[in-house]
Amino acid sequence: MALIPRLDVAALDEQPLDPLTKGLPFGVPPMRLGDVGGQGWSLLAGDIPLPAAIIREDILRANSAWMRDFTAANDLLLAPHGKTTMSPHLFDLQIADGAWAITVATVQQLEVCRRFGVKRILLANQPVGRAAADACFGALRDEALELYCLADGEAGLALLADATRRNPPPPGNPLRILVEAGFTGGRTGARTRAEALALARGIAAMPGLQLAGFECFEGVLPTPQAADELIDDVAALASAALDEGLVAGEAPVVISAGGSSFFDRVGERFDRVSFSRPVLRVLRSGCYLTHDTMGYAKAFQRIVSETTLNLPAGGLEPALEVWAYVQSRPEAGRVMLTMGKRDVGFDAGLPQPQRWYRPASGMDAPQPIPGGHETVALNDQHCHLTVPQDSPLAFGDMVGFGIGHPCTTFDKWSMPLVVDEQYRVTKALKTYF
Amino acid sequence: MALIPRLDVAALDEQPLDPLTKGLPFGVPPMRLGDVGGQGWSLLAGDIPLPAAIIREDILRANSAWMRDFTAANDLLLAPHGKTTMSPHLFDLQIADGAWAITVATVQQLEVCRRFGVKRILLANQPVGRAAADACFGALRDEALELYCLADGEAGLALLADATRRNPPPPGNPLRILVEAGFTGGRTGARTRAEALALARGIAAMPGLQLAGFECFEGVLPTPQAADELIDDVAALASAALDEGLVAGEAPVVISAGGSSFFDRVGERFDRVSFSRPVLRVLRSGCYLTHDTMGYAKAFQRIVSETTLNLPAGGLEPALEVWAYVQSRPEAGRVMLTMGKRDVGFDAGLPQPQRWYRPASGMDAPQPIPGGHETVALNDQHCHLTVPQDSPLAFGDMVGFGIGHPCTTFDKWSMPLVVDEQYRVTKALKTYF
Repeated sequence: MALIPRLDVAALDEQPLDPLTKGLPFGVPPMRLGDVGGQGWSLLAGDIPLPAAIIREDILRANSAWMRDFTAANDLLLAPHGKTTMSPHLFDLQIADGAWAITVATVQQLEVCRRFGVKRILLANQPVGRAAADACFGALRDEALELYCLADGEAGLALLADATRRNPPPPGNPLRILVEAGFTGGRTGARTRAEALALARGIAAMPGLQLAGFECFEGVLPTPQAADELIDDVAALASAALDEGLVAGEAPVVISAGGSSFFDRVGERFDRVSFSRPVLRVLRSGCYLTHDTMGYAKAFQRIVSETTLNLPAGGLEPALEVWAYVQSRPEAGRVMLTMGKRDVGFDAGLPQPQRWYRPASGMDAPQPIPGGHETVALNDQHCHLTVPQDSPLAFGDMVGFGIGHPCTTFDKWSMPLVVDEQYRVTKALKTYF
Repeated sequence: MALIPRLDVAALDEQPLDPLTKGLPFGVPPMRLGDVGGQGWSLLAGDIPLPAAIIREDILRANSAWMRDFTAANDLLLAPHGKTTMSPHLFDLQIADGAWAITVATVQQLEVCRRFGVKRILLANQPVGRAAADACFGALRDEALELYCLADGEAGLALLADATRRNPPPPGNPLRILVEAGFTGGRTGARTRAEALALARGIAAMPGLQLAGFECFEGVLPTPQAADELIDDVAALASAALDEGLVAGEAPVVISAGGSSFFDRVGERFDRVSFSRPVLRVLRSGCYLTHDTMGYAKAFQRIVSETTLNLPAGGLEPALEVWAYVQSRPEAGRVMLTMGKRDVGFDAGLPQPQRWYRPASGMDAPQPIPGGHETVALNDQHCHLTVPQDSPLAFGDMVGFGIGHPCTTFDKWSMPLVVDEQYRVTKALKTYF
């Protein structure tokens, strides 16, 4: 496999936009991705077809800076999960704000990072399939790239061992492996500390692989207390592996956890353990960057109220919104909008109407949606809202929705739009889903 | 707005593939979309990264032919909903099998159809927003294009009237309007026959617009009996509008309904009414083409057992599958796979494991999944399966899943792969979501 040609986001901005891209105004002249921000388009002026996914640039940058400050203040490193946005422009922002690495879930996502010059990548899964394993070792031929991936069992390790023999990595650039700690009834990961340590010993003995540490994904657990146990496993495993001399050389050891819902607990629990060597404590939060108005908003409230860690001023705010037109108000108490399952995530709560705007009406700015407006259903391309009899909403009005779980809204847009506080388009992103 | 440049699917096949496209093997040389089918790639040989969305070509063609025969045998026309697949190659197949038009839900989808030369398009929504209305009239400047859209209220009609004044359509190519009949508590559409007829009168009086008929979307109703009532409204409205002389000229009148779940009832109910002019009875089913293993499979069983219409031999079968690797079997009763909410629809039932295959094991063909395997959760990039203690599944095995509601699986893939009965890749599609 050839070395992958490197692009940067400037090159991405040079790419011609397919005129059929969802979100692009109809009938515009041919343009490049990077031209979108200079068109003077305004969401509120009706320049953008709705539905549209927009990201408030001011909030995005503030969230990114907040997490930079939070991790710096608490001796944590950030490897934000790139699967959330799959946007090289946003990876760049995260790296500019000090991200230690970008995390990915699949080899296709790894390839996107590589192509856009990310130099340290954490594949937070065990590679499966000969092609995926070979792609990981192929990536190591670029000696400037540092690649971590997971192992959670002997079968996965055997696949990596075979791939190492087919594609020996350059000396000094081994495939770095984090052993995954899991829990009974959970997702991937060794079920006991003994199994995890046995796996670590196997990795330590394997040429071309390097035991680089331990990690878990605690995000599927229901409570902070349950997360604590799993996070403690990771720290204990790292401590034991160091004591046993399993980590070669002088490289620091990585301990890592998922982190969007419980990033306080990751910091607190990792802080309780002392290690015989420097340890990198890596959070992999992905959702902090745009945040949401539902589950992560609630999780953040808990963090702020409970944590013993250092909290910077400010906090995370929702940056990602989906806007739709009122398509019909066929009954006084019922409003239909031009947004559906194709346009907005619905796996962590239905989108919530938050503000509305009537184009060409002289309204200064979007107004808060009064109480009593509730999303009751989504079809593929429609949103059903129940509204009070005196709702102001009428055909042609624009409604901005808050979303839950940004990952499943991002993946519905190949071109999310970045806007300023007046909802003027400042930039177009490209996503790779 | 300029006339849109026409492409055909041959031109689409010439488009260079982004090497970062999900579903493309890693590290392949630059190629065009049309080159994928000639590479000799086999899913079962491990040539394709998993997860992968595949469409069985034999079943796809049989489904398309079955619906062609069904509509022909029952004096129905088909305007299949293009939003399901958003694939110009599949639109071509549907048109080759006699589709009267392609239905779309949004103006962006309309633009995709126009660009790939679809000559009759039914926009099954009322345009909202000045830009969308103008785009509809802009499309009419191509006099070879016949465009239908919906109206469900006076406000929507006023928007179209304004747009007509800004963009008078060429004589002989008006914007054809179907009045939408709805129901209380339902989606869009006039709530009473009186409101629908009043709207029809307004359209008939408006220059540049042509009252072309009536339609409904009965797919959100729970039972065939409830659907009957709404379908009957459509036929009664058309009959009344004809009697009142609201439909100008000699053009036939369209009556249309949604049709994936209740297409028998559409045919049966429309057949009961006699009209004073020829009437085109148009089904808009979208999901028949790939069908599914859940809701539509059940709906089709009901149709076959109940209908009085002429049924061709054979029937609809599921053509769309998503395949994933077993990534871990961390407990005897639990298997994790490399497929999640990013890869497969989950709004109409979790994907069902149906067959499995062990690469390089000498297995001839995928084997049926034994009883007791159940999908219990999907995360963004993982699938959780509970399995019997004696399940054959092991790390690295491939599992093929049946899906519910093809629309929400298609929209997760920019490049679904068409395969033959041995799961060899014969073609790549491009979708426009």
